[in-house]
Amino acid sequence: MKIAVMGYGTVGSGVVEVIESHSRVIMERTGGEALEIAHILDLRDFPEDPHRDKFTKDFGDILNDPEVKIVAETMGGVNPAYDFTVRLLKAGKAVVTSNKELVAQKGLDLLKAAEEGNTNYLFEASVGGGIPIIRPLTQCFAANNIEGIAGILNGTTNFILTKMIEEDMSFGDALKLAQKNGYAEKDPTADIEGHDACRKVCILASLAFGKHVYPSQVATQGITDITLEDVSYVSSANGVIKLLGQIKYIDEDSIAAFVSPAVVYNGSQLASVRDVFNAILVRGDAVGDVCFYGRGAGKLPTASAVVADMIDCAKHVNRRKIFGWSNGEEDYVVDYREKIEMPFYVRAKMSESRVKNVFSEVKFLSRKGQPSDEVAFITDKMTENELMEKLSGEKVLNIIKVTNY
Amino acid sequence: MKIAVMGYGTVGSGVVEVIESHSRVIMERTGGEALEIAHILDLRDFPEDPHRDKFTKDFGDILNDPEVKIVAETMGGVNPAYDFTVRLLKAGKAVVTSNKELVAQKGLDLLKAAEEGNTNYLFEASVGGGIPIIRPLTQCFAANNIEGIAGILNGTTNFILTKMIEEDMSFGDALKLAQKNGYAEKDPTADIEGHDACRKVCILASLAFGKHVYPSQVATQGITDITLEDVSYVSSANGVIKLLGQIKYIDEDSIAAFVSPAVVYNGSQLASVRDVFNAILVRGDAVGDVCFYGRGAGKLPTASAVVADMIDCAKHVNRRKIFGWSNGEEDYVVDYREKIEMPFYVRAKMSESRVKNVFSEVKFLSRKGQPSDEVAFITDKMTENELMEKLSGEKVLNIIKVTNY
Repeated sequence: MKIAVMGYGTVGSGVVEVIESHSRVIMERTGGEALEIAHILDLRDFPEDPHRDKFTKDFGDILNDPEVKIVAETMGGVNPAYDFTVRLLKAGKAVVTSNKELVAQKGLDLLKAAEEGNTNYLFEASVGGGIPIIRPLTQCFAANNIEGIAGILNGTTNFILTKMIEEDMSFGDALKLAQKNGYAEKDPTADIEGHDACRKVCILASLAFGKHVYPSQVATQGITDITLEDVSYVSSANGVIKLLGQIKYIDEDSIAAFVSPAVVYNGSQLASVRDVFNAILVRGDAVGDVCFYGRGAGKLPTASAVVADMIDCAKHVNRRKIFGWSNGEEDYVVDYREKIEMPFYVRAKMSESRVKNVFSEVKFLSRKGQPSDEVAFITDKMTENELMEKLSGEKVLNIIKVTNY
Repeated sequence: MKIAVMGYGTVGSGVVEVIESHSRVIMERTGGEALEIAHILDLRDFPEDPHRDKFTKDFGDILNDPEVKIVAETMGGVNPAYDFTVRLLKAGKAVVTSNKELVAQKGLDLLKAAEEGNTNYLFEASVGGGIPIIRPLTQCFAANNIEGIAGILNGTTNFILTKMIEEDMSFGDALKLAQKNGYAEKDPTADIEGHDACRKVCILASLAFGKHVYPSQVATQGITDITLEDVSYVSSANGVIKLLGQIKYIDEDSIAAFVSPAVVYNGSQLASVRDVFNAILVRGDAVGDVCFYGRGAGKLPTASAVVADMIDCAKHVNRRKIFGWSNGEEDYVVDYREKIEMPFYVRAKMSESRVKNVFSEVKFLSRKGQPSDEVAFITDKMTENELMEKLSGEKVLNIIKVTNY
């Protein structure tokens, strides 16, 4: 079966590599069908590449080749990936992608285009890289009401936080090291400000609860305000700070979804997720907590998930996989600050007696070199709005949510 | 769509409960089809049960009801479950099961019967209870050569080992507590001798590598020889003892598969799996290590996996899911003692100098109250046969494999 790859960057070239190096298992798993690379779309020139005769700069070469049945979109970004994908799907070609930005923004439209073309749009690689999560979420948990999801969805920030926690490295130094190791881009904004995690939250929430959640609906806070002082206080409470994407079911008509640093207590499966690894914890009412762990990014892990989707498409030509993913609504994602109760970590310039006055009961934390006018504590459960009201007028240095996962 | 349940024990009654309590999500996920319980097969009487009008003691009532399209087999054991399942499948009814003993012994035959009947035989619940592993293994890793699998596959033994590790409880006391809590049966042999884990290893190996592996081919050792002394020595090396099922790819024609206690170093995702939880780690050549974690047993987790398989069958009537699972061979599973190199933990009545004489280099361990004539150490990598040769004539107290997962 002929296939095409659009975008020959890290993931796209990985897709070509995996298809070639795994031709035997691919044949076995499609039931005898080989994946044959017919075209590679990229605007750049790769004169030295062994596939140079496959390259094209003209999308029409793929769209108009009737033999091409499956296309891997590994371009990234919304444009022109969106336009290309819609046209391919409507023409009846299956498309698989690792492009989380596109799925988060346009997943519903693209699934509708796939329906029109009686073909499949699959995106296992868009969340958690090589970690299987889309299929388990849509198939294996089918007999559960999902109560919540919490995930370490971004490897770059988890690497930075791991260095801060384990090696007492400052945020700035850890970021530089991540860049040096190729884990963070020159402009690290999408990672450290939580935008990348936000996109993955949108995809998970849309699949888990069936209504499209858009990035603009997800309150998103990155890790740039986390200091070694916070890390140290939290450590004294037997916890670690992780960047979590969290989704909570409220009722049939509403969920909460947010990305933020969070205190995770040791003993949680999420606490032991170190370095660039990702993990996604799903809480179902029948199954309890299930956790998926692995490399959330990287050339071959992500490419292997893209190729697995291609294999699935090869097995399901003209048979559509149905995701229950319908229109979202403006008020579907509620303001978590108002609705969700949780404990909070607070670091402030306050006296202990003042803290006790404001909060009936807290757990005080300590750290080496703690200044006499600084306190850190963990509150009882309350909404963030209630917390902010209690703290109004106080000199607050940092606030971090405490998770119950 | 009408369905039947065979066996109204813990899992079977859980299946009925999940179907009834989750009718809304089930409808959503099948695309509008409800699962309607038509018959429940059990030899016992349940006069007080609200479903008493559904009960039958006659298998023919299910087999001969043309409206019944899907049957959950939650009877356990090989007979008569095997006979019933074959007849249902050949009659074109889909069967889903949590019966690991049956799948491990007869999986291939039953998949062939399903092929004959042009229907599906699904068994997600047979490994890891509610943890999704069968689908990820067969679909999401399709573009990987699987190099190995290691799993904590039995909750009872993991509970016992956790109590030994964390509370210094003896094996006997921990077993009694497990029985009191309902985690272990009166006759705990299948759990503590590793037979239950062995069955799951067979299913995982058969799916991962495509050839049926039978329980008799898997060298199986339980946890009854593990003492608090071993736990303590291993703890001094920053490790824990877990009962692991391990599968290793050797080449196209051979694998190794064995169940035994194993030293897992802290830092591994498997080390932090406590209590009755299970975890399965899959190592793929493209994706790296991926780990799945959750409740491996229990009424509702297991039942929710059975019902998820029923939903999948409801979506795939007359469309078969293909597992690449073919005939096994007698010499396909090699003797790991001869082929697989690994480090070993050894506890013995030997002097340190004698140990140094026999092994070029080892890491000595220590424990509180260590007798002066006892040593414990971790060897370099070697085969078990090589180890046994080196230790021949020595007074060995215990030997435990050290895993590289």
